[in-house]
Amino acid sequence: MITTLKGRTTQVEISPERPTAIIGERINPTGKPRLAKAISEKNWDTLRQEALSQVGSGASIIDVNVGAAGADETVILPEAVKVVAEAVGAPICIDSSDPVALEAALRVCPGRALINSTTGEEKSMAAILPLAAKYGAAVIALCHDEEGISGEPEKRFAVAQKIIARAREAGLEESDLLFDPLVLPVGVGKTNGTACLATASLLSGRLGMNLTLGASNVSFGLPDRHVVNNSFLCMAIWCGVNAPIVNPGGPGLRESILAADLIAGKDPDCMRYIKNYRSSRQRQ
Amino acid sequence: MITTLKGRTTQVEISPERPTAIIGERINPTGKPRLAKAISEKNWDTLRQEALSQVGSGASIIDVNVGAAGADETVILPEAVKVVAEAVGAPICIDSSDPVALEAALRVCPGRALINSTTGEEKSMAAILPLAAKYGAAVIALCHDEEGISGEPEKRFAVAQKIIARAREAGLEESDLLFDPLVLPVGVGKTNGTACLATASLLSGRLGMNLTLGASNVSFGLPDRHVVNNSFLCMAIWCGVNAPIVNPGGPGLRESILAADLIAGKDPDCMRYIKNYRSSRQRQ
Repeated sequence: MITTLKGRTTQVEISPERPTAIIGERINPTGKPRLAKAISEKNWDTLRQEALSQVGSGASIIDVNVGAAGADETVILPEAVKVVAEAVGAPICIDSSDPVALEAALRVCPGRALINSTTGEEKSMAAILPLAAKYGAAVIALCHDEEGISGEPEKRFAVAQKIIARAREAGLEESDLLFDPLVLPVGVGKTNGTACLATASLLSGRLGMNLTLGASNVSFGLPDRHVVNNSFLCMAIWCGVNAPIVNPGGPGLRESILAADLIAGKDPDCMRYIKNYRSSRQRQ
Repeated sequence: MITTLKGRTTQVEISPERPTAIIGERINPTGKPRLAKAISEKNWDTLRQEALSQVGSGASIIDVNVGAAGADETVILPEAVKVVAEAVGAPICIDSSDPVALEAALRVCPGRALINSTTGEEKSMAAILPLAAKYGAAVIALCHDEEGISGEPEKRFAVAQKIIARAREAGLEESDLLFDPLVLPVGVGKTNGTACLATASLLSGRLGMNLTLGASNVSFGLPDRHVVNNSFLCMAIWCGVNAPIVNPGGPGLRESILAADLIAGKDPDCMRYIKNYRSSRQRQ
């Protein structure tokens, strides 16, 4: 299964056979007062730099979220999306809980965007899936519904199947969906990691779906979070996650992903791994 | 399934529910001329220090291999095993391709040792499995036979089933076996990593076996080998490997394993992860 995203100048094909595609998560003002201020004041240079920096660190898709900036999202989200799309050629992941803001941004976003996100809640699917169909976008689908996030992988899988059915009714294909198997912090529950990984294995193994994952949530509250994040990503890649949402500049993250891809057979002749090694040596 | 090993003073229980047990691989003179010299000259301080250092880095079982030291293994292996067993309380993994040397070492080794190793070859099984039964030892079993190392996980699994049958005939239980799903370097074949991991999943998923793995072979010939090794170990732990043979002092290795255990639900309340974080901060 191939999920194709298009940016202003570059195209990304997400599929189980291809190397992991990194969705850069850094343009999100939640918990970042300086970024919130920059966005609300339309200081777009900050956004441009953050987008370019993530592409430089290996992101091939850029998430744009301005929800916590304190500005009118329906106005500021399309502006931010345009700015980022002009700064980088990469596809955009338009990230908002407001369908009106999403539609405003989809109208101005070049190429084929990724919407972040629908859940399995009827209200969410009713608002988001038709938008994806109307604008020809792909959609991230979170594996929870009105009953919350289940601790049982089979229940999360059932939510995904419901979303697939509704997506078909809305005129979408399975390849238009990127499922997020969802991870809660392992610091608050010892089965939170396994529930996510087992769900990922079900979605990739049974249906061949492409999978995203807001991976860094796994380490919330722990010291040396990057160690947990990087180990988790390697395990998640083995379970089928192939387009995680992460900070591509996190310590050791790119190297961990390249090594996991190599081990998973997604880097023939080790060329990506070795190329990154050489260029990181040159930077030193 | 629980595989219990006993050292002079400590006992290790290997099971899918428990944290990963590290088998320290460093006492092996292959490619280490100084260690070879120390062993052939019976300079035991070197061995004692290497054993203690590995325990300090998190190994709970110590592999002892003197095969490449250029000395008579049937004499030197039992001496080396005694020295290491006296230096550390941990169980010993007695590592030799010579059944006579293995038996000489088993005779003097305190506790319950781990034999490294049998293969699925009839000649190997006929020599090694009765030794394990006679001395009440556990055995590492490599998933290849007279036909070599198969690229197909189902064939490696079939070799494991054959070894289980022969082990039963020799009076052993499944819990006396630690299977090694075998990894060849990913640098020489892009499916070498996936073949190993898929075999591990079959052995753990279908049979609940405990699994070892000579993990660092995966990165042979590549730069920054520790990056590949650490990513691979995280993936292997998810696939059921719970007693890898590694260099416990490798850069970032212990942290990667602790994080993978945490994610895999083998570290309730994150106590092992956090304790290691605190003690590594104190060392700095």
